Amino acid sequence: MRVGDKHFQSIWVNENDSRIIQVIDQRALPFQLIIKDLHTPDDVIYAISEMVVRGAPLIGVTAAFGVYLAVMKFKDSRNADNLIQEAAITIKETRPTAVNLAMAVDLQLKAIQCGQSMDEKLKISFDTAFRFMHEEILASKNIGLYGKNIIEEIAKTKNGSPVNILTHCNAGWLATVDFGTATAPIYLAHDSDIPVHVWVDETRPRNQGARLTAWELGKHGVSHTIIVDNAGGHLMQIGKVDIVIVGSDRTALNGDTANKIGTYLKALAAHDNDVPFYVALPVSSIDWTLEKGLNNIPIEERSEDEIHFIDGLSSHNKLEQIRITPENSKAVNYGFDVTPAKFISGIITDKGICKANTQEIKKWGP
Amino acid sequence: MRVGDKHFQSIWVNENDSRIIQVIDQRALPFQLIIKDLHTPDDVIYAISEMVVRGAPLIGVTAAFGVYLAVMKFKDSRNADNLIQEAAITIKETRPTAVNLAMAVDLQLKAIQCGQSMDEKLKISFDTAFRFMHEEILASKNIGLYGKNIIEEIAKTKNGSPVNILTHCNAGWLATVDFGTATAPIYLAHDSDIPVHVWVDETRPRNQGARLTAWELGKHGVSHTIIVDNAGGHLMQIGKVDIVIVGSDRTALNGDTANKIGTYLKALAAHDNDVPFYVALPVSSIDWTLEKGLNNIPIEERSEDEIHFIDGLSSHNKLEQIRITPENSKAVNYGFDVTPAKFISGIITDKGICKANTQEIKKWGP
Repeated sequence: MRVGDKHFQSIWVNENDSRIIQVIDQRALPFQLIIKDLHTPDDVIYAISEMVVRGAPLIGVTAAFGVYLAVMKFKDSRNADNLIQEAAITIKETRPTAVNLAMAVDLQLKAIQCGQSMDEKLKISFDTAFRFMHEEILASKNIGLYGKNIIEEIAKTKNGSPVNILTHCNAGWLATVDFGTATAPIYLAHDSDIPVHVWVDETRPRNQGARLTAWELGKHGVSHTIIVDNAGGHLMQIGKVDIVIVGSDRTALNGDTANKIGTYLKALAAHDNDVPFYVALPVSSIDWTLEKGLNNIPIEERSEDEIHFIDGLSSHNKLEQIRITPENSKAVNYGFDVTPAKFISGIITDKGICKANTQEIKKWGP
Repeated sequence: MRVGDKHFQSIWVNENDSRIIQVIDQRALPFQLIIKDLHTPDDVIYAISEMVVRGAPLIGVTAAFGVYLAVMKFKDSRNADNLIQEAAITIKETRPTAVNLAMAVDLQLKAIQCGQSMDEKLKISFDTAFRFMHEEILASKNIGLYGKNIIEEIAKTKNGSPVNILTHCNAGWLATVDFGTATAPIYLAHDSDIPVHVWVDETRPRNQGARLTAWELGKHGVSHTIIVDNAGGHLMQIGKVDIVIVGSDRTALNGDTANKIGTYLKALAAHDNDVPFYVALPVSSIDWTLEKGLNNIPIEERSEDEIHFIDGLSSHNKLEQIRITPENSKAVNYGFDVTPAKFISGIITDKGICKANTQEIKKWGP
């Protein structure tokens, strides 16, 4: 989407040297726009584990390029195939919750097969990652087209005042490659002159809402207001939310959805206040092997330092990290929660919209 | 409660000079323990509006002493009565949500009457505030005694492992004068060797949980873990919360309760996971004039800067403020939400425990 006058993706191949993959370092946003070059599988592992890149679809695309970079690194080694395989497995295990990561690596491992020469493998792994990236863009755009219809319907009831959309975390173009998942309907509605206003959940502890979603929306010119994660329930109680749209890190066959920690609380509030609650995701985020999500999707536990420390811009315009908890207190940091399907009004996919139940979800199946 | 070897209250009369009221500056916690002297009604207004002191019961006690300080300031003025009255009204209007503030000021205005000399008024207003403070301490302690029984019952089912209690914001001794409201049962259980562990909601945007509740519990030696506000639902889903206890800024006759923004979301999650959800409050926080709370209790809207900026301890051990949102994004900052009575398992008051409905609450009535 737009950043000022330029069109940006969250990941791309360097236009002069296809051995270099480039990403936006999302840790520096919204304060600095830093581009990071990925040369090796280790660069990719670092980028995924340290959350230079994050968001299930973007992690998948980065991982796919990671296998390509592994082929490039090891192709002249004696036991190249083993080294590539090992690197691929390490990439796959970097983060546990998103299904796209494992799928992207498996896709690559299936594409590069025994009979091929290393040069063939290099070409095939590049093409696979590149095609995968473009499929993600197309998927996001299609989610946007389907989801836009829902916003358009609500707009008809609003007499010209904006449709108030609440979103949690960043399921924006920074989390995919372009358009986003939860934000795709918002961007397409905005670009079609449907008046929208977005309530952006701050999304503690990493503040992806306040840092990334607000930045994205602002740069593209979409009206938005940041709120703390505690505020959404009250806003729904007083009628200031028309629809909730969130992303998904993994959706089970029955519709149960793992997404950023706190999503479940917003689903409960939406349910209690009759506010439609939609999950937007490419069908690639559906885990066809999981009948139910609750208690079945592994929930990543991250470092407690993400809760003790926070960084931002000091009065001297310098990036600084400060401690915000007492020295001797512990913290625990779960990355995701699972929203039971019964609280989900519908699922907006790149193939269409459906109810959050096994029968309807299955029709998008492989 | 204890801070190291010393016993502390959140507000007290200077032991050598009863013209000085002393409070802990809660803005500097948990990093520094700063005592602030209040000499004038303006000091009191500053302390309440800038949240040097916060928490409905403590605000009430501070306001009561504020009227005493107004009498002291104006007693030799020509139109002393008018000036005292004006100061009292200004104090009363400093914050809108807590009922204790208005009640405390009204109590004072009723106590100091026309026929009295200014010296009598000075003595009466001091005595009224002092008695009010000690009634708050007693109320907290009684809440603790009643609430402890609930924790003790749960402990019997836990085979010696700790009772996991989730609390939101700071309804601790820093919010009252001593013991706290939501924390009083926890402190008394802990002091009776009932094993407890507290999940402390960070409580954005002012982080009273991470800053104050965690500090209090730590200083008193109570086992606790800080979590982000987003995490409580997940913890309940995986069975790690035995009971939720929160405070109240104002409870209506039917049990609807205004408390720190985000309380409602925890009540929804508790309801969905069959976790008992209790509100602990002195009966002085019940608004006998309000039949229902939802849509009737005024919700304070505070400065959006509380969301854009956060302060903490820099790596050089200096208190620093940093910006955590994009420069051009707006924010909106509601201080409270209202939890409907139907999600409240019971109300723990200083007079006993009751269900959250008009019939039961009325029996504590004036």
